[in-house]
Amino acid sequence: MNPPGLDDLLTCLRFPSVSTDPAHRSDVRACAEWLLGRVRGMGLTGELHETPGHPVLLAKNKHIAGRRTVLLYAHYDVQPAEPLNEWKSPAFEPVIRDGRIFCRGATDNKGQLMAHVQGLAETLAKHADVPVNLILLFEGEEEIGSPNLKPFLEKHREELKCDVVAISDTGMVAPGVGTFTYGLRGIACLEARVHGPAIDLHSGIFGGAVANPVTSIARLTATLHDAGGRVAIAGFYDGVRPVAGWEREAWAGLGDGDAEMLDLTGSPALFGEPGYTERERRWARPTAEVNGIGGGYQGEGSKTVIGREAFVKLSFRLVPDQDPVRVLKLAEAHLRENLPQGVRLEVKPGHTGMPYLMDPHSALGTAAQRALKKVFGGKIALIREGGSIPIVQAFKDVLGVDTLLLGLALPDCQAHAPNENFPVENFAAGVRLNQALLAELA
Amino acid sequence: MNPPGLDDLLTCLRFPSVSTDPAHRSDVRACAEWLLGRVRGMGLTGELHETPGHPVLLAKNKHIAGRRTVLLYAHYDVQPAEPLNEWKSPAFEPVIRDGRIFCRGATDNKGQLMAHVQGLAETLAKHADVPVNLILLFEGEEEIGSPNLKPFLEKHREELKCDVVAISDTGMVAPGVGTFTYGLRGIACLEARVHGPAIDLHSGIFGGAVANPVTSIARLTATLHDAGGRVAIAGFYDGVRPVAGWEREAWAGLGDGDAEMLDLTGSPALFGEPGYTERERRWARPTAEVNGIGGGYQGEGSKTVIGREAFVKLSFRLVPDQDPVRVLKLAEAHLRENLPQGVRLEVKPGHTGMPYLMDPHSALGTAAQRALKKVFGGKIALIREGGSIPIVQAFKDVLGVDTLLLGLALPDCQAHAPNENFPVENFAAGVRLNQALLAELA
Repeated sequence: MNPPGLDDLLTCLRFPSVSTDPAHRSDVRACAEWLLGRVRGMGLTGELHETPGHPVLLAKNKHIAGRRTVLLYAHYDVQPAEPLNEWKSPAFEPVIRDGRIFCRGATDNKGQLMAHVQGLAETLAKHADVPVNLILLFEGEEEIGSPNLKPFLEKHREELKCDVVAISDTGMVAPGVGTFTYGLRGIACLEARVHGPAIDLHSGIFGGAVANPVTSIARLTATLHDAGGRVAIAGFYDGVRPVAGWEREAWAGLGDGDAEMLDLTGSPALFGEPGYTERERRWARPTAEVNGIGGGYQGEGSKTVIGREAFVKLSFRLVPDQDPVRVLKLAEAHLRENLPQGVRLEVKPGHTGMPYLMDPHSALGTAAQRALKKVFGGKIALIREGGSIPIVQAFKDVLGVDTLLLGLALPDCQAHAPNENFPVENFAAGVRLNQALLAELA
Repeated sequence: MNPPGLDDLLTCLRFPSVSTDPAHRSDVRACAEWLLGRVRGMGLTGELHETPGHPVLLAKNKHIAGRRTVLLYAHYDVQPAEPLNEWKSPAFEPVIRDGRIFCRGATDNKGQLMAHVQGLAETLAKHADVPVNLILLFEGEEEIGSPNLKPFLEKHREELKCDVVAISDTGMVAPGVGTFTYGLRGIACLEARVHGPAIDLHSGIFGGAVANPVTSIARLTATLHDAGGRVAIAGFYDGVRPVAGWEREAWAGLGDGDAEMLDLTGSPALFGEPGYTERERRWARPTAEVNGIGGGYQGEGSKTVIGREAFVKLSFRLVPDQDPVRVLKLAEAHLRENLPQGVRLEVKPGHTGMPYLMDPHSALGTAAQRALKKVFGGKIALIREGGSIPIVQAFKDVLGVDTLLLGLALPDCQAHAPNENFPVENFAAGVRLNQALLAELA
């Protein structure tokens, strides 16, 4: 039997709200408008706020002096669905198989967003109010680094004043284990493009005369790490805080991470910075990842060509106290210094987001832990996560508040990948978590 | 005023006879059938011969004992037209601008093929015969390495017995300079694919845990050369014949090659193996070229993903006395030895072709030089070329004859690249060259 609110989630999932792709601009807006209708229908007041990019949905109950104010953040935009041919069912047509909802955005973030919406809808239907002053803030640009949300927070600073932010956009360490994430990695993105000949050249006629941009981009990319997996950019590790002793112990207690990672990823082996466990490497150590490389002939068979240009898309995952903007400068300097002969380099810095850490043993942190215990039973995990939610740092900077990250994604929900999915039972747990959390914070 | 035969060339160009692409299989055949009709219409007898791939066109005049037998080879297949958005006019709709025909295949090889066809048509119309025993052999698989032509030659060895082969599929050093190419580089192709996780992974959540296949392919590709541009595969240069003294002198006399290359390619600088001029590097030294690389996100903007696999397409240009099959073995061994940790390697060897050298001062060579002088005036250049025509070595091996390479392509005809073109005057010169060559060989 489907839990209440599931049909609404399926409707929400059908909007292909891919924020990075201009072709989906109107789909992103349509999703926002549908959500606005949904929360208004529950009895909240709200509206869409325009930004230079996609709209922000802001909604509230009637605020009453003396109650705690809780800002609930989520995002309604999704990652691109490519490669489409690897989906077992169409990326934007949700289907339920084996108790899981398969669709782009199912887990990141619409499943979790709609769990909160359903939790609120039930509370409002029963009590005509929720026990706190509520602010809903749903944005449509999380997957492109939330470029317009910080200015939005600054502009609406008074209206958004709150005691704490809550977000469900992180993971659970295992099914049924309530998980409190108190740290996130930051991010800094960069695209490098190498230009050579003015046109594609016949590699027989011209091969040997000029530098090949595809060879050059590979040589340049290969300078980013040493053979052991450490990032080789000078100054990259400056300011990185060591992993705390209690964290090393707590994370080691979560079970055999290596076996779990091998199983989850299907990789032939684990690999990464020496001297750290895989959890430490993902949660508390910075990385340089190559998200895409391309140049020359991409089709079937062979084409004997020297491509005129080639690109590499990089992202750096950062930890306290690295500064993303400084990292981009170091990376650009490294690329310029290591550029092979005979080609020209173009560097496009991309979006950045600060790393984040809060104290899980603070008053608000312990309230969150109580809510998790109520929903999931006694077992609670305290972790950091490897992903980035740049907005968490923005809440800290602009509104001066911490963020409670109470995520519902399982490690095999395949966020950002083909066949993304979300268990129906996690949706139901999310509905209860919304109710327990607001009760504990009240 | 358009020269006679130009309309026929335009018709021939409209067939998108891309041999590497299964989607164009019927277009390749349609082109062959049209050509058969054309040469039968001139009074030759001929037919299409099936192969496991695309058909071979074979046609003859009536052979008379005591005359020299000349086999005229050309290919009617073309390279893929991608990237399509860089063409100023559609790739398979020929247009004439500034005295040049723009179309995929205009120079490589349909313009030169049809010049010979027109030369023969005129001679046959005037004299009802040509002065030699003629064999026309037009194939449809040159751009994929002629996998079926050598078996075809072996099967039809008696029927194809001849004194010499003539081919126009090479270049002229400059407009108006008749050019005799007495050497070609060989080729060996290989695709390497690196496999990592079973699915694309979120680079935040998983970054640091596993090897990234895109990083790995870049690191692996970077091991192919040293920083100076020499190929770093052990044994690669074994057996390479030094450039002869007379060649160094003759090629230096062709003018400032560096300036010409910079102008033709539009590259920021020249780059290649130290110790050789750019002509020596292109004509008499082997190379390893990266024809394509790809992996991870290829679209606009950023996607924070660890791609599950990545590929690189390589081709080696080879000179006497390198053995292409041995080079592929050395390359595969090199890739396996240098594979970064944590990924799995798949190597697909591709097509190969032997390098070729003949003596330009032999009796047949001097006949070819006389024909060039008749068409172009006194200036003749003796060169090698960097491209590969594997079939030239096959003619030597199976039929025991040398090949006269009398090309009509200019350096800026952009063979294999967008906006490929062929000067109308070179087409007209090709018609005269066909007539002069058969007269000199008679």
